[in-house]
Amino acid sequence: MALAAAVSHAAPPAKPTAAEVLQASRADDWRPLDPGRTLLMQLGATGDAKGGEVLIELAPRFAPRHVANILTLVRERYFDGLAVLRVQDNYVAQWGDPEAESAEKARPLGQAERKLPAEFEVPLRGLPLSRLPDVDGWAQVTGWVDGFAVAADPRANRAWLAHCYGVVGAGRDNPADSSNGTELYAVIGHAPRGLDRNITVVGRVLSGIDLLSSLPRGGANMGFYDQPEQRLAIRSVRVLDELPPDQRPALQVLRTDTATWRALLEARRNRREPWFVHRSGHIGLCNATVPTRPAPKPAS
Amino acid sequence: MALAAAVSHAAPPAKPTAAEVLQASRADDWRPLDPGRTLLMQLGATGDAKGGEVLIELAPRFAPRHVANILTLVRERYFDGLAVLRVQDNYVAQWGDPEAESAEKARPLGQAERKLPAEFEVPLRGLPLSRLPDVDGWAQVTGWVDGFAVAADPRANRAWLAHCYGVVGAGRDNPADSSNGTELYAVIGHAPRGLDRNITVVGRVLSGIDLLSSLPRGGANMGFYDQPEQRLAIRSVRVLDELPPDQRPALQVLRTDTATWRALLEARRNRREPWFVHRSGHIGLCNATVPTRPAPKPAS
Repeated sequence: MALAAAVSHAAPPAKPTAAEVLQASRADDWRPLDPGRTLLMQLGATGDAKGGEVLIELAPRFAPRHVANILTLVRERYFDGLAVLRVQDNYVAQWGDPEAESAEKARPLGQAERKLPAEFEVPLRGLPLSRLPDVDGWAQVTGWVDGFAVAADPRANRAWLAHCYGVVGAGRDNPADSSNGTELYAVIGHAPRGLDRNITVVGRVLSGIDLLSSLPRGGANMGFYDQPEQRLAIRSVRVLDELPPDQRPALQVLRTDTATWRALLEARRNRREPWFVHRSGHIGLCNATVPTRPAPKPAS
Repeated sequence: MALAAAVSHAAPPAKPTAAEVLQASRADDWRPLDPGRTLLMQLGATGDAKGGEVLIELAPRFAPRHVANILTLVRERYFDGLAVLRVQDNYVAQWGDPEAESAEKARPLGQAERKLPAEFEVPLRGLPLSRLPDVDGWAQVTGWVDGFAVAADPRANRAWLAHCYGVVGAGRDNPADSSNGTELYAVIGHAPRGLDRNITVVGRVLSGIDLLSSLPRGGANMGFYDQPEQRLAIRSVRVLDELPPDQRPALQVLRTDTATWRALLEARRNRREPWFVHRSGHIGLCNATVPTRPAPKPAS
C-alpha cells in the first residue's frame, strides 16, 4: 500500500504508457454519471445466465427530442418486459417491442411522442470539441464532446455523433423522421460509419456492451431472431435518478476535455509497452475508447 | 423463376446498389476456395449448442513460414481437442493449447517448427494490389490482394495485412519472433489497426466468425477464461484437401481484382438504397467486407 501510494504521486514518465497516464490521473480528470440522463437496463429474466446490466449514457446535446422521449418511455416502464429482437454479426444488437407492428398488441406509448424530427446533426459552432488531430477519412474534423466521438464538417457547420462501437441509436424505417426512440440498437462490430448522418444517435453504452455483443446472432434477415424464445428479455430499464443513490452504479468517466485524455491519446498513438515493435503514430476515432473506472470510495 | 432469370441478365443500373452489383456479377468474378490453404475448424464437442464451423483462408503470400507451419500442425492434428482460451470484448478470440506453458503437459509440436521469423511485412512492389482510393489514416496506401485487406508504405516499399474484423493472426510474447502458429486469434471487434506491423497475420475467417464473436467474454485479464469449463473445445481442424471433395464447404469468394468489386465499393461509398438520406462518399478499408456465396450447383 505504501509503495502504491508513492507511485501514484510520482511524476509520470515523459513518454508514458496508457496505464501510466491513467495511474497519474487526478480526481478531477474524472466525472460522475449524470443520474438524469443515464439508463440502467437489466437484461434477462431472473436467473437467466445470459442476463446482466447495461449502462447507457444519453446524449441530449445531440438528440434532445429523442432523449426526452426515451426518458419518458423509461419512466413509464415502456421497455420493461420487451426484448432484444435482433443481433446481426459485426453490426448491431437491437431491442424493442416484438409486437410493435401490431395495432392490437403493440405496447402503448403513453405520454411519449409517436413522431419526432430526425436529429442527425447539430451545429458545430459552439460545441466544446476536443479535437483529434489524426486523419479520419469519413469526416474532415473529429474529436470528442464529453466522451462522445463526434465527426464534423466545418464548412457546413454541422457535427454529428460517430457510429463507434457501443453507440446507441434509434432505429427507423425509410422516412428520415420515422424514429421515436421505442426501438434502439447498439453497435457491436466494426464502426458502421456509413450510418453517420443517416439515423439519430441517442447515446452510448458505458458498461455491459459485452452482454449485447456476445448474444447469439439471429438467423433471419438482418439478424432478427426467427424464434421468439431466442429473444433475451429486458427485465427493466430505469433512469438512474429513479434509483436510490446506493443502488446506482458507482462509475466514473474520464473527461475528454483534459490533458490526461490528450496524453492518453498520445500513449495509444505511439505505444511504449515493450510488446510493440512498431508505433502507428495514429489512432482511429473509434479505436480511442473513453475509460471508465469504479468511483473511489469516499474517505470515511 | 423466369423473371429472376431475366433480371439477372439485364444490364445493371448506372448507379447500382450493392445488391444490384452482386446480382449482375459474372461467374468469373468469383473464385473457389483453395483446398490447400483453407482450414475448416469444427468448434464444440458433439451436441454442444455453441459449436459450429469456422472456415479460415490462409495467406501464404504474406506469411509463408507461419502458414506452412500451421498446415503442418493441422495435418498432425495438433489443434484437435484444444480450445478457445480467451475472448476479449471488442478485440479478439484466441485458441490454442491450455497447457502450452507446461513443459510436461504441453502438446508436442511434432514436425512443426518451434521458432519462426516474424512475418509482419512483405515488399509492396510486385503485389497485385487493388487500390482503395479512400483515405485510411493508418497507412498511406490501402487496398486488397486476393480478398485480403492490405495497407502499405510505398516509400519504404512495405505492405502488410490490416487487422480488420475476422482477420486471423499468430499470438506472440514480447519477442517479435516468438509466434509459431500454435496460438491463433481472430479479430471480433472494431479493427485494432494498432496491431498492424506488430504481429504476424496468417489469414482471415471466411465464414463462421459469428461463432467466435458471440462466445462469452472471459473474466480474467485480457479476456482469458478463468474457469476451464468456460472454454469451447476445438473438435477438429482440417485442411480442405484432407476432406473428400463432397465434404468441403462449397463457398465462393468475390475476386477483388474485378470491375465487380470496384463497382461494389462505389455502391457502398454512395449508398443508393432508399433508406439512406446521406451518402458518405467514403468507405473504410475494414468496412468493405469481401462477399462470399454458396457455389452454384453444377448443371446436371
